[in-house]
Formats: sequence, C-alpha cells, structure tokens
Amino acid sequence: MTDTLRIGGGHVLRPDMSVEEADVLVDRVSGEILEVGDVPGGDATLDASGGLVMPGLVNAHTHTAMTLLRGYADDKPLETWLREDIWPAEGELTPEDVRAGTDLALLEMIESGTTGFADMYFHMPEVVDAVDEAGLRARIGHGVVTVGKDEDEARADNEESLEVAREYDGAAEGRVSTAYTPHSLTTVGEEFLVEFTEEARDEGIPLHFHANETEDEVDPILAQEDQRPLAYADDLGMLTDEDWVAHGVHVDDTEIDLLAERGTAVVHCPASNMKLASGAAPVQDLLDAGVTVGLGTDGAASNNDLDMFDEMRDAAMLGKLSTGDASAVPAEAVVEMATAGSADALGFDAGRIEEGRKADLAVVDFETARLTPVHDYVSHLAYAASGADVRHTVCDGQVLMRDGEVQTLDAEAVRERAADHAERVTERAG
Amino acid sequence: MTDTLRIGGGHVLRPDMSVEEADVLVDRVSGEILEVGDVPGGDATLDASGGLVMPGLVNAHTHTAMTLLRGYADDKPLETWLREDIWPAEGELTPEDVRAGTDLALLEMIESGTTGFADMYFHMPEVVDAVDEAGLRARIGHGVVTVGKDEDEARADNEESLEVAREYDGAAEGRVSTAYTPHSLTTVGEEFLVEFTEEARDEGIPLHFHANETEDEVDPILAQEDQRPLAYADDLGMLTDEDWVAHGVHVDDTEIDLLAERGTAVVHCPASNMKLASGAAPVQDLLDAGVTVGLGTDGAASNNDLDMFDEMRDAAMLGKLSTGDASAVPAEAVVEMATAGSADALGFDAGRIEEGRKADLAVVDFETARLTPVHDYVSHLAYAASGADVRHTVCDGQVLMRDGEVQTLDAEAVRERAADHAERVTERAG
Ligand SMILES: [Zn+2]
Ligand SMILES: [Zn+2]
Repeated sequence: MTDTLRIGGGHVLRPDMSVEEADVLVDRVSGEILEVGDVPGGDATLDASGGLVMPGLVNAHTHTAMTLLRGYADDKPLETWLREDIWPAEGELTPEDVRAGTDLALLEMIESGTTGFADMYFHMPEVVDAVDEAGLRARIGHGVVTVGKDEDEARADNEESLEVAREYDGAAEGRVSTAYTPHSLTTVGEEFLVEFTEEARDEGIPLHFHANETEDEVDPILAQEDQRPLAYADDLGMLTDEDWVAHGVHVDDTEIDLLAERGTAVVHCPASNMKLASGAAPVQDLLDAGVTVGLGTDGAASNNDLDMFDEMRDAAMLGKLSTGDASAVPAEAVVEMATAGSADALGFDAGRIEEGRKADLAVVDFETARLTPVHDYVSHLAYAASGADVRHTVCDGQVLMRDGEVQTLDAEAVRERAADHAERVTERAG
Repeated sequence: MTDTLRIGGGHVLRPDMSVEEADVLVDRVSGEILEVGDVPGGDATLDASGGLVMPGLVNAHTHTAMTLLRGYADDKPLETWLREDIWPAEGELTPEDVRAGTDLALLEMIESGTTGFADMYFHMPEVVDAVDEAGLRARIGHGVVTVGKDEDEARADNEESLEVAREYDGAAEGRVSTAYTPHSLTTVGEEFLVEFTEEARDEGIPLHFHANETEDEVDPILAQEDQRPLAYADDLGMLTDEDWVAHGVHVDDTEIDLLAERGTAVVHCPASNMKLASGAAPVQDLLDAGVTVGLGTDGAASNNDLDMFDEMRDAAMLGKLSTGDASAVPAEAVVEMATAGSADALGFDAGRIEEGRKADLAVVDFETARLTPVHDYVSHLAYAASGADVRHTVCDGQVLMRDGEVQTLDAEAVRERAADHAERVTERAG
C-alpha cells in the first residue's frame, strides 16, 4: 500500500463551482489533498471515469441516533409529535441504542457521500467510538436541556456538555472535534447560558444551538426580554464566528445583520422545516448579507433520511417558493452550502477540492439515466442526483466506500442491529 | 415460460394502505392480478423478500422528451426560461430527438418504479413506438398551442391532436390510450377549444390541459371573461369526469367545488411548482372536497428528474409548509395520489394491488440503510425511499426490470443516444 491515493479519470468540482477534467492525488498519511490536475502515474486507486469528484457533503446539524425513530411518528404537529412520540422514545434510549442508531446513521451518510457532520445528542462517548470506527469527521456535543430539571440536574447537564467537549476534542486521530450545545434559548435557563458560555469561551469551545426554528421559540423571548432571540443570544455572548445556529427560520433583518457582523453561521434545515411546518428560512437574504450558511438534515425522524442531495434540492426549491423568485437560491448556492458552507460553519478545513485541504470527498457516478444528459454538473448535483448515485466516499484520505461497498462498517450487521434496537426502544416506549 | 408470474416472499401494500405479508400471482396473458395472499407453488418468479410490492407509480403529467433538456437551464423566472432557453431548444427537436429523449425518460421511469404516465408533447408517433417497446402504460396527447399561429396552422395543430388521439388509442396491445391536449386556456383560442372539445366529446376522447399553474394564467381570464379560469373552462365544456387538469395551483374555493362536482381530476406537480416559484396547490383542500388528485413530475427540465418518490416527498412537505399544519397531506395521502389517484385521473384500471386490476407494480427493496428500521412502510415510501430503492418493475404482467436490470431497453445505448441528441439539439439552439 502506497502513501498516496489517486482518484483518476473523471471530472472534478472546483471551489469556484467550475468543473474540469482532472485527477486528485491524496496523501493518506496527512489526509490532505496533494494535487488536483493531470496526475501522471499508474492506475487510479479509485476510478472516477464517468464521474465527478466533489467535496464530501457536510451535514451541519443532525441528531444521528434518531435514525432509530425514522418513520416512527409522522404527520403530527411539532408539540404533539415531541410530547407523545419522540420524547417518550428518547427517554428509553440506552448507550447501546445510541450506538446502534449512530452506526446506522454513519452507514447511511457514507453511502450517500457525506463525510462530515455535527451531532447534538446524548451518550456521546458512544458517538465518538462510532465515528472513530466508521472514519467520518464530526463535531459533536452533548445536548443540554434545563427546563423541567432542578438546579443540580440542570447544572450537571451543562457540566456534562463541557466535559464531553473537553474530553473528546481531537479524538479519532483528530477527526472528532466538539462544541458546547445548549439545546435552544427557550429550553436552557439564562443563568446557565451565561455561566457555561463564558466557560466555553475561556476554553476555546464553540457553541452549537437551535435558534428561531418556530414562532413559538421567538414569541416568549420577545415577550420576556423585549428583544429578538438573536439579540438576546448576542447579549449573553453566544454569537461569535466560531459558533453556528441551527434553523434560523424566523429571523428578521436586524438578526440577519447581527449574524453577518458576528460571523456566526446558520445551518439551514429545509426538509425538517417543511415537514414540521416550521416555515422557510430567508436563505437568499442570509447569503446576500454575507452570512455563512450551511446545510443540515436535522434528525432522521423529521426528514426522514440523511441524504444531503435531498437537502440541496429541498433548499433550492424552498428558496424559490418562499420568495416567489425562481432565480433565488440557485444550484451553485446549495452545492456550496452543503460543502464549503457547512465545513466553514463547523470549522472543518474541508469542503473544497483544492491542494492542502483535508481529503474529504465523494465521487458521484454520472453514468445513470437520471443524470443523462450532462448539460451542467452542478445543476445535476442540486436537482437530479440522489445519494444512491455516489460511487466512492473518502474521508481524511481514507476510503470509506469503494464502488458502493462500505469498507469500514459491516452494512448488514449495522442494519440488523439498528432494526433490533429500534424495535426494543419502541416497545419500551409503548 | 408459464402463463403466470409469482412475486413472492415479501410484503404487499393493499389499496387501504395496510401492509401484509403476501405473495402476488399475475396472469401474464391478461396482464391482470389473479391473487393476493398465500400463493403456494414453486419458486417465486420475482423475489420480493425484504421488499414491499406496491402499485407501480403513475406519473400523471409530464413531457417525456424534455429529459433532453434536463439541467439545460435552471434558476430562471418562468418567462425568461421559456423564451430564452426552452422554446428555442424545443423548436429544434426532430422526431429522432423526441424518440431519444422519450426512451431516456422511459428508462428512468422503469428504473424508479413508474409503470404509467400521461404525456403531452409532439412527434407523438415516436412516443407511441417508444412506449410499445419499453412496455409501460401511457395516455398520450399531441399538445396544442394556437397563440402566434394563423388560422390554418392553428386548426391543423388541433386536428393533429385529435388525429393522434384517434389513431393511437389502444396501441401497444392496449397499453396506449389517448387524450385531446390543448396546452392551456390562455395559449389556445376559445373558438378552437369549443370546436375541438365538442369533437373530442363526440368521439369519447378525454381532455388533458394545464390550468391555473401561475397567477399570470389566471389574471387574463379574470380580466377578459370576468370569471375564474375553471368556471370559464366549464362553460366551454372542458370539465368532465374523464378529464384532468395539470397543476391547479391557483384555484379558489369555487373552483375546488366545481372540480368536485364535475369529477375532474387535478394532477399536482409540487417540484415543478416550487422550482418555477409558481406557488403551492391547495392539495389538502382538494382532497377534503373529494377531488381526485394525482401526482406528476412535469417535464424533467423543471424538476429535474422523473422520480415519483421525490414527488411524493415534495407533495407531503409542500402540503405541510403551505398550510402551516404538519398533519396536512400525510404519507398515506401522497402514496395514494401517486398510485390510485393518478391511475384514476388517467382512467387506468391500475394503481392498486388487488385481484382483477392490471398487474402494474413495483417491488421496493427495504433492506437498505435509509429504509432501516421499518416502523411504517407507508412513511418510508413517502419520506425516505428513492427511485434507486426499486428492485423489480412489472407492467401489464410483463417484467420490465428484474433485480435492477431493465429488460426491455438497452440502458447504456439509450443513455448514449440521448446524450448525443441532447448535445446536437442544444448546439442547434445556440
Ligand atoms: Zn435539531
Ligand atoms: Zn406541464
């Protein structure tokens, strides 16, 4: 085995969204891209002929183990869905369940060309082990909720989040990084947000939290604080250029300007926002204001898959529908959001096929009926491709999937274990 | 080869949306379903283990040969897109181009579990030949536009539509049926609509036309006729229970009631409506009023694929977003729309797995990461499955795809020919 990996014979998507015929040479030791161009030498390690080498997709907001609850409850209003179905089931999740659900999520991600993600969940040591073995890149955080908890429990939950962030930063040979992840501005008490955000800042730990997802999340803050949620978050010190907020559906112009000024990224979750009828984030306005916008699936229970190609398509479609402008949120924008935008949001040195970047990439097979003819590669990535069109997946210079066969996980065993755990969880949740 | 086909070892989706373990026995001669249940006998002709036998999807509004223009022009306002890109390219299409594009569309349909469709396009003899060879079921029509034409040309176009409808009804061993297909109420002169609709009625030919797709299609009729477009169409005799209209985005309550009274079906095209920023059809209201609602992709240039699983997902998502109600347009409704609803709209005796119906069906493989676990088969069809999950496709009792291999078309040759024709068309269009 040589120290380099040569992905040859295909086309390559460059950071400026142009496409050229080129090979990609990767250093397996450093996990970086060495060269993009005409790379002479022997046979390609990975055959990209008839395909496009693109940056690995980055799912910048999800709750991975929720794959166990995929299709468990649908078509219900958010509050009912959470209270009657999701929370009772989540209350039953053991560390082993979380591991099984996370493995399933990672398998689905690798199969559909996703190489990196941000997770906010619990039993995080299990998630770290899963990421270590599967080979992806992740920024993980223990999600904190303090409403309904007494002072000691609430404090312990926050401390666990910081402890996880300290302990696992740099795990899995540097592929795991971490964040302090208070669930949202309405589910974590202000005194905790202030105290633990300050502590996180002192230790250089970024923040990842839900913000402005529904009107119900905006109105109480407007009523109690007499300010918009993101102005409130800013006053608590929660918006810096290391942080990112998920959703950002109901943000007004002052909040968009604030995000741009602070350099805080927004992770757009169009499928979840449509499925839960939360609304449409002003994505074109965010982009116009210079805000970094990433893309995420949210948990599989409100999506119901982790296919970032679906998410790109949904983002473009929703961007047009919600503005009444068919030129809004074009193909290039959604591909950029799902790659460089998400990578920037999470602080990954990836999301672009260029020399010196982390070699996190996917090869999409364009020799299929649904991707014929090829007038425009980027249009196809946004509107016509699906995760099933991915041929190879590479992360940190390692091959995670070759010719549709995942190399780091036993796909059948992962599926069977997840199905088994899902059944037991829902039985316990009754 | 025996006269029966046994699809065994899996689960079956029944017309009431329940799922049971069952085999399906098909008569290859009559092309009908003989039995659903525990069918003893030898090995299954088609292995459905780990899979779900569902009705073949019916794409009730498309323009098949537009696959050649998939990704040719995106992210533009409707008028610009049509005038600068689509119409000039369509003006260059020869019969050979239409054949190549139609073959590509049929390949994509078979691969993604679609067994029937309604086509409105031109050079229809080519489409009929393509359908005959590929083995699908189709209701086809020559699309009529009279604006910008002189009296003789306009009349000839209408006459060609009726001539095609007469000539090809019952072609391809009965798998082809026909319709009179004036493009829309604003692109065909009233005198022609009146005259040729009457002629079509006399000969028992149904109508298929675009209606209320954009505000720009509604306003001129409101201004000139002082009535809503569908009231106008009704006055012209264009709404019966044999007919169906595509889109129905901007319909008001009086028009919904009118559609319900007349028994005219609406074919919802959510992806096209979002991509072109046309708006959101009031699908839940249409269903509540008892209107037959089918589902269609529209042409591939405004979608950009023909995957009806995408369309089901889009319909459910858009139905929730546009009403602000996460319980609107649930999974069962979109699966019904894409199968029985579309079949009823087109007058196909299909869309349901039950004895005596046409054996038009697809077997979806549930042994994949993205469809694990299976809490609810119908949820997965609506929200998580993609066309790539289809294992076998059967139409009229004949196997069109077995284990992912299309039997009736040479996939590689079809793709290559389509790519070649697409390139030449866009070169000619400049
Ligand atoms: Zn979330
Ligand atoms: Zn159309």
